[in-house]
Amino acid sequence: MNNGTSNTRAADGPPPAGHAAHASTRERLLASAADLFYTEGVGVGVEALCKAAGVSKRSMYLLFDSKDALVAASLENRAPMYHALTIPPADDGRAPRARILHVFERLEELSGNPGYRGCPFVATAVELKNPEHPASVVARRNKDELTEFFRTEAEHGGAADPQALARQLTVVFDGASARSVVQAQALDGLAVTMATTLMDAAGLD
Amino acid sequence: MNNGTSNTRAADGPPPAGHAAHASTRERLLASAADLFYTEGVGVGVEALCKAAGVSKRSMYLLFDSKDALVAASLENRAPMYHALTIPPADDGRAPRARILHVFERLEELSGNPGYRGCPFVATAVELKNPEHPASVVARRNKDELTEFFRTEAEHGGAADPQALARQLTVVFDGASARSVVQAQALDGLAVTMATTLMDAAGLD
Repeated sequence: MNNGTSNTRAADGPPPAGHAAHASTRERLLASAADLFYTEGVGVGVEALCKAAGVSKRSMYLLFDSKDALVAASLENRAPMYHALTIPPADDGRAPRARILHVFERLEELSGNPGYRGCPFVATAVELKNPEHPASVVARRNKDELTEFFRTEAEHGGAADPQALARQLTVVFDGASARSVVQAQALDGLAVTMATTLMDAAGLD
Repeated sequence: MNNGTSNTRAADGPPPAGHAAHASTRERLLASAADLFYTEGVGVGVEALCKAAGVSKRSMYLLFDSKDALVAASLENRAPMYHALTIPPADDGRAPRARILHVFERLEELSGNPGYRGCPFVATAVELKNPEHPASVVARRNKDELTEFFRTEAEHGGAADPQALARQLTVVFDGASARSVVQAQALDGLAVTMATTLMDAAGLD
């Protein structure tokens, strides 16, 4: 399932013959797939996908066992970029409250982007409707990473129940991004206000 | 687009010849479509849809201009039932806080149902990724109805800013239902706790 990781690992040793061309087809397919799935949904067919990536179906099936595996790998591959859009770098010297608010400020900005289609992890899980699908597993793990970021900050900030606050903040993130999709408009401070209220109530400094 | 309404209107006058059979095909198609779109997503093809409903494609296209129109009409048709699952009846004699909490208590219950796939309005909008799609318009209007329910109750309960609280509660509803889908588990009190905290902060009695 996780072809993204195995490819990275291959780079540790000497590249096999044809590795560069292989990697480039793979990367192109992963990038095209991530773009298409985000803008049109994971229901996009293999035909359209290969066409957009300029890759033959045969090449696709040599690289990925199934479309399901490609959906999962493309989400996994794009995950670090998605996280970097909202989660601040470690040790940026700011207090936990500011670091948590950074996530919601960035979400508010992203929601004003005409191409914004909500949280890619939530969208994937909601579209697939199957918690066992390999891409739903990727989605769940990545939402857990956001919750873990919140929990760590909440703990540093002295929240009464860091895990509870972290789950609440994740709900605000997902609910606010869903709202922005449903309403087709930017958030206008809603997410930041809610995060602030919940941090205050949880006794975070 | 809104075939659901035009059919209701037709019932005001004398039924045309063949009306009963026509209405029954229509109702069967709307019900099958709503079920299938909720459990498998709005990407389900016309072929599969007609097969599940036991209706020919020709009959479907006589009743609906397009699949898009059917997606919208089936969501609209099911909307009163969806609302009744969470929104309490008018004038049940309870205080605004209890009436608002009713929505979240019901959501917590629903999220424990193995067939729960999240809020159908949010799911539809997130899957379609197009705010102009007739079904996205239906979704938006129905989320606005939930917000309006919260706003009215928040006003009766003396909240400082009823509209702001109503939007926050809608975000909790959507974020919590998304979480239940992503995590594939029941909510365990999260939505009720968040709603309570936000109502307290907003000064609702």
